[in-house]
Amino acid sequence: MRIVSGMRPTGKLHLGHYLGVLKNWVNLQENNECHFFVADWHALSTSYEDKLNLRLLGKELVKDWIAAGIDPEKSALFVQSAIKEHAELYVLLNMITPLGWLERNPTYKDQLAQMQHKDIHTAGFLTYPVLQAADIILYQADVVPIGEDQKPHLEITREIVRRFHHLFNCEVFKEPKEMLTQTSRLLGLDGRKMSKSYNNAIFLSDTPEEVWQKLRGAKTDTQRVRRNDPGNPDVCLVYDYHKALTDNATVEQIANECRAGTIGCFDCKKICANSIENLLEPMRERRAKLDDDTIDGIIEKGNKIAKEEAAKTMEKANKAVFEISCEI
Amino acid sequence: MRIVSGMRPTGKLHLGHYLGVLKNWVNLQENNECHFFVADWHALSTSYEDKLNLRLLGKELVKDWIAAGIDPEKSALFVQSAIKEHAELYVLLNMITPLGWLERNPTYKDQLAQMQHKDIHTAGFLTYPVLQAADIILYQADVVPIGEDQKPHLEITREIVRRFHHLFNCEVFKEPKEMLTQTSRLLGLDGRKMSKSYNNAIFLSDTPEEVWQKLRGAKTDTQRVRRNDPGNPDVCLVYDYHKALTDNATVEQIANECRAGTIGCFDCKKICANSIENLLEPMRERRAKLDDDTIDGIIEKGNKIAKEEAAKTMEKANKAVFEISCEI
Repeated sequence: MRIVSGMRPTGKLHLGHYLGVLKNWVNLQENNECHFFVADWHALSTSYEDKLNLRLLGKELVKDWIAAGIDPEKSALFVQSAIKEHAELYVLLNMITPLGWLERNPTYKDQLAQMQHKDIHTAGFLTYPVLQAADIILYQADVVPIGEDQKPHLEITREIVRRFHHLFNCEVFKEPKEMLTQTSRLLGLDGRKMSKSYNNAIFLSDTPEEVWQKLRGAKTDTQRVRRNDPGNPDVCLVYDYHKALTDNATVEQIANECRAGTIGCFDCKKICANSIENLLEPMRERRAKLDDDTIDGIIEKGNKIAKEEAAKTMEKANKAVFEISCEI
Repeated sequence: MRIVSGMRPTGKLHLGHYLGVLKNWVNLQENNECHFFVADWHALSTSYEDKLNLRLLGKELVKDWIAAGIDPEKSALFVQSAIKEHAELYVLLNMITPLGWLERNPTYKDQLAQMQHKDIHTAGFLTYPVLQAADIILYQADVVPIGEDQKPHLEITREIVRRFHHLFNCEVFKEPKEMLTQTSRLLGLDGRKMSKSYNNAIFLSDTPEEVWQKLRGAKTDTQRVRRNDPGNPDVCLVYDYHKALTDNATVEQIANECRAGTIGCFDCKKICANSIENLLEPMRERRAKLDDDTIDGIIEKGNKIAKEEAAKTMEKANKAVFEISCEI
């Protein structure tokens, strides 16, 4: 199946990104034709005031992906803004997209409410689901892995496809299906949402020392005062990390020992650090082999693949729109 | 000065188009560097449901221009949708354009009210001033010839330019000035607005016979019943045509003779037809030399010029947006 998915280049990736998105991508690439893209135009829709070097962040993002196990031989990794066809299709789709679909989109309203610290009452933010529709259908995606909050957007994509086909009397695009993925529930080390801006995240590019320093300071069961006190793993942050990263047998053993007061938090964290290392160490090895030229070459190759496919779709789309013709 | 102006390819041009726009273009091309473009994406914003062959209409439009005296050696004639940079810049500008600027635009509200027979409550129609801004600033226009109703749009263009420069701390674009042009007040031959859809227009491509057939049936002073009755040129449609197309001395003479009842409407119309022929005959001669290949070649050449300049501007704009850098 053809799968298309993108990520915004807003900074280095952490465990939450891995568990919520990348782990899934790594699995998907085995049996599918995947297109993964750096959504730099989308990043602008919420970060145009932040003076981010999105070009550099985009390269770092691709480096993070490959370190995390995305294989550029299996999947096309490309940069959205390098493929002008996304913009071209966005123009066409905007022309036929009723404002009401965008204004009544529940995710749009939620995000406006959540991001009151940002000035996102812009044309770009209102219409980003249209750009997203272009991103997806340009490559004739069969399936798009999305979180629950993106469901209304994919519905808009499908409605736009149907409206296009109806208006121009020609089937140009595939209607993409959704693949619901669980967003990571792993919290940051202070108990808040894991986020770079809260300074509570373990990054995929952290050194073993950085990981341990962060883990050492993590909250555990605050009711447990002495080492021999029985603990309650269900209220312990580190236990959540174990559940996400440690093998099941060990997780069960730790829970029992914690409840019995036979394992201390320090030792428990050491085991957790070890689980994290099992994940991050191979990433570090892969990352060490990636210099800037290699990344540039991978992106160039991905862009070329994307560009060719996008141009093919646009030829059909333009023919339908500008010549009311379905022949190519 | 660099001048940029576009026209939508919605059908063959009539006298109103010539007097309102083209005559001005023909004058401007003498001492300026003009870019005239077929606004086919803009045509979609109001005509996406009309199944127009915009590709063909675009070529006919350029043929009309050249017939009317636009010189492709002096000006670049190109097709908007062939220059993807318009779409690319539109994406960027949308990101920074507050919705309020678009929603509060008085021309937007007027048009929504006027075009209630069309479904233009779309993202594309709301944001078409942003695409228009891109059209203009992509070519670093000094001046844009516009009608009164387009003033709010050009103000939005300038505000977008200022906002871009402020946000990305780099002067990429020129702030275009307006050149107010009088929209043609020439009515159609039935006294309504001249329009193809009212079937009341004299087209630049009409034959002498067609012109005369249309003119013959035109309303004059309805109070004047017999040939010798004194007429009132001020209520006569044909007199408006004289004022627009006949030399001043003749216009005065006709007015006097009409008031005295010494010239009949038939003879007056013959003189008017002659004035129209003085305008259209050279157009027919130029048109006769224009085959499809010639037009294709002219557009290809214009696209090439436009593309090169647009790419140069986009390099600067992308550098400012994606790398927060003002160096090139």
